[in-house]
Amino acid sequence: MNFKMVANLLGRSLCVEAIFLLPAIAVSLYFGEAQSARALALSFAATALTGGLMIALRPKKKNFYAREGFVTVAIAWLVISLFGALPFYISREIPSFIDCLFETISGFTTTGASILTDVESLSRGLLYWRSFTHWLGGMGVLVFLLALLPSTKGSGQSVFLLRAESPGPDVDKLVPRMHNSAKILYGIYIGMTLLEMLFLRLGGMPLFDTVTITFGTAGTGGFAIRSSSIAEYSAYLQSVVTIFMVLFSINFNIYFLLLGRRFRQAVKNEELWAFLGLLGGSILLISLNTRGFYQSFFESLHHAAFQAASVMTTTGFATVDFNLWPEFSKCILLLLMVVGACAGSTGGGIKVARLLLIVKSMHVGLRRMISPRLVRPVRMDGKPVAEETLHGINLYMSAYFAILAISLLFVSFNDFGLETSISSVFACLNNIGPGFGVTGPMGSYASFSGFTKLILCADMLIGRLEILPILLLFIPSVWKRT
Amino acid sequence: MNFKMVANLLGRSLCVEAIFLLPAIAVSLYFGEAQSARALALSFAATALTGGLMIALRPKKKNFYAREGFVTVAIAWLVISLFGALPFYISREIPSFIDCLFETISGFTTTGASILTDVESLSRGLLYWRSFTHWLGGMGVLVFLLALLPSTKGSGQSVFLLRAESPGPDVDKLVPRMHNSAKILYGIYIGMTLLEMLFLRLGGMPLFDTVTITFGTAGTGGFAIRSSSIAEYSAYLQSVVTIFMVLFSINFNIYFLLLGRRFRQAVKNEELWAFLGLLGGSILLISLNTRGFYQSFFESLHHAAFQAASVMTTTGFATVDFNLWPEFSKCILLLLMVVGACAGSTGGGIKVARLLLIVKSMHVGLRRMISPRLVRPVRMDGKPVAEETLHGINLYMSAYFAILAISLLFVSFNDFGLETSISSVFACLNNIGPGFGVTGPMGSYASFSGFTKLILCADMLIGRLEILPILLLFIPSVWKRT
Repeated sequence: MNFKMVANLLGRSLCVEAIFLLPAIAVSLYFGEAQSARALALSFAATALTGGLMIALRPKKKNFYAREGFVTVAIAWLVISLFGALPFYISREIPSFIDCLFETISGFTTTGASILTDVESLSRGLLYWRSFTHWLGGMGVLVFLLALLPSTKGSGQSVFLLRAESPGPDVDKLVPRMHNSAKILYGIYIGMTLLEMLFLRLGGMPLFDTVTITFGTAGTGGFAIRSSSIAEYSAYLQSVVTIFMVLFSINFNIYFLLLGRRFRQAVKNEELWAFLGLLGGSILLISLNTRGFYQSFFESLHHAAFQAASVMTTTGFATVDFNLWPEFSKCILLLLMVVGACAGSTGGGIKVARLLLIVKSMHVGLRRMISPRLVRPVRMDGKPVAEETLHGINLYMSAYFAILAISLLFVSFNDFGLETSISSVFACLNNIGPGFGVTGPMGSYASFSGFTKLILCADMLIGRLEILPILLLFIPSVWKRT
Repeated sequence: MNFKMVANLLGRSLCVEAIFLLPAIAVSLYFGEAQSARALALSFAATALTGGLMIALRPKKKNFYAREGFVTVAIAWLVISLFGALPFYISREIPSFIDCLFETISGFTTTGASILTDVESLSRGLLYWRSFTHWLGGMGVLVFLLALLPSTKGSGQSVFLLRAESPGPDVDKLVPRMHNSAKILYGIYIGMTLLEMLFLRLGGMPLFDTVTITFGTAGTGGFAIRSSSIAEYSAYLQSVVTIFMVLFSINFNIYFLLLGRRFRQAVKNEELWAFLGLLGGSILLISLNTRGFYQSFFESLHHAAFQAASVMTTTGFATVDFNLWPEFSKCILLLLMVVGACAGSTGGGIKVARLLLIVKSMHVGLRRMISPRLVRPVRMDGKPVAEETLHGINLYMSAYFAILAISLLFVSFNDFGLETSISSVFACLNNIGPGFGVTGPMGSYASFSGFTKLILCADMLIGRLEILPILLLFIPSVWKRT
């Protein structure tokens, strides 16, 4: 393990975070919130100072491989969460530090699970910061760091960092140099963010709401600035959010291909069609199942589309309390929670690509059972899939269910009922946010014990980083000096 | 597909079933139940006649491979369930044929889920038959058929039938000839069955109870002859049942090794220790968690041991209503449901061996991520595990969760709440019997819709036959003539 290199990268991540605290200070000052401006400024100082000191540790060796990549990403997320929680704590707007940490990890991991029972009471500056953590966490802080690298610098570490932080079973190289890939990803991300803001403003949404709700959509996070989530906005605004939730949870490679006018290659993406098919089917089934709840089928379709998209893209906004829906609709939502979004997007969950590969492997496996000599590889998007990728998926799935089981046991100590416990673990591990029962879209995570909140914090991080980076921290040989 | 060979084997299975209907007729006559004796005799005639006609189809070719094995086992279980349901239907003791089928499939698959709200009202003859289906289903009807084969006859089909019907990721050959293995397995099974009867009789249990409860324990089934399950028997009798539930869910190879005085090899079985460790840990945690419910820690330990063993061995008997326990204990039971018993036993569930291999694969996979050149195979009981076995486990697990998800959607239409729906699907797919909520140990499956009952019937069969035989029925190329 190249410790100095890791520390250097952590320092740089903190500096990025510090820079992003500045707009939050500006927001606080604009709204005349002295208390929160002071808290944000103090947090800025602490973050920048620590980051600067760590950068000063200049690494002698440049060796940086897969394990350095995983470890850097895992620790970076812990560290930026700890520092990101400072503004809430210093301002005393959230009194308990565990709650501050829960809210910040929920933000960065784009979960959107909240311990706040009265969102409106938070100051504007902190509401801005809270929503902004979604935006940064969505595409990743280390990917942002890579995007800053000058394009002439060939850095061997890029590939390992990008792989460790980006969601999905496999990372496509958009262009030969990984840090150029990072630039392109952030370019598309910023462009789409501005586009959503434009559409929301056109619908008459206030500027502050526009910025924060867009951050929540872009990162597929789900923090809103009202306790009623998105319920009070117009049907037009809700529809804009629905569409952008879906757009942000599609593989960004597709946008890259579209920008390069490679349309044929873009529409060949099997995951996209599986994702849209599952989402469309779910919306239809839920609309039919909940048609008695609303005045017209169109209204039920509107809310079904919003809620299904919100859950499948792992955003977690809500326009209605889906906790009150019939069990069949809730079961569909529960399954969509697990499925999640597309690989290479800002969405969470197991990812459609993984499930698609599992289904394809099953098919190949069944055929092999009948005719053992007939060995055909699994293919995706017209190309054979590497055995290594399939092994990785099996590893991921096993770890996923093990973590699910262990978390469920811990959460069950709260005795809130199996429905709340299971859905809360699902909602955190898949980075959605709201569950059913106590943690439903109009409820909160406030009443869980401190210990349970820490377990759910771990779940959110494990979910966002797709398990392996966190798991590897516990393997002793990872820490050996090289 | 060698259709005539399959038909011939189905005919033989029906004849075995017909022969086993005879003692049930005797029981009915002994208790003077004319109605049920008539129903059982009619069922005997129908089963024997159909079986005899099918045996008359003499196969010309002897080719019999993996797919013939899977298809034979899958259809045989459907057919014996259909005929096994006849006595309940003809006697009108269970008026709906779907209910008759549910009860019979639940019996043969050793699930023990019941649609009866008043077990005591069933006639003795039918209660005997209902419990006996557990005994036959536990070790398997085709394995029984193989055990009948003369030991000189070398039959190529044995290995494929035994593999398709026996639980576990892999089938060990006890002895070179598979049908001799079948003889040994049934020998041990009968011996242990008689031993349990002896111990129950020594505790003063009435003869009829002794026979039926032993059938329920031996097959790890769980049908009792009272609505209160095992709650009304003495603590001694409950303890005997606890111990035998555990004994019947241990890999029978271990008993074979013990009989051959190969003690060292027997205790090397890693699955056994993992099974006992998980069970022991669960009992301890539940005892501590439920200590407020009972007068002494010893009493809470007694009930924890019974319930944990009952669920993990997938039997499904109960001495208390664990539905009322705190959520943590219920979560442990829910997880034990999924884990299940040991491979090569009469128990169901995913099996400890599969989970152990998954954990080992995870460990190897994680190490491979750090040092890709370091490829060490997964080892179990000191031997390297074949890649094929691991592939089979991945296939099984993927199919398992897919079936779980689809079943849950169908069951959720009943709107009994997520706790009931999830636990009922778990209880049927893992062949346990009781779930939580409506289907708790003191409840029943009576109130589900007919369609839901059929879905759960499919789950029970899929669970008992470990998915693949049933799944293969839906692959067109399986049905090609050879």
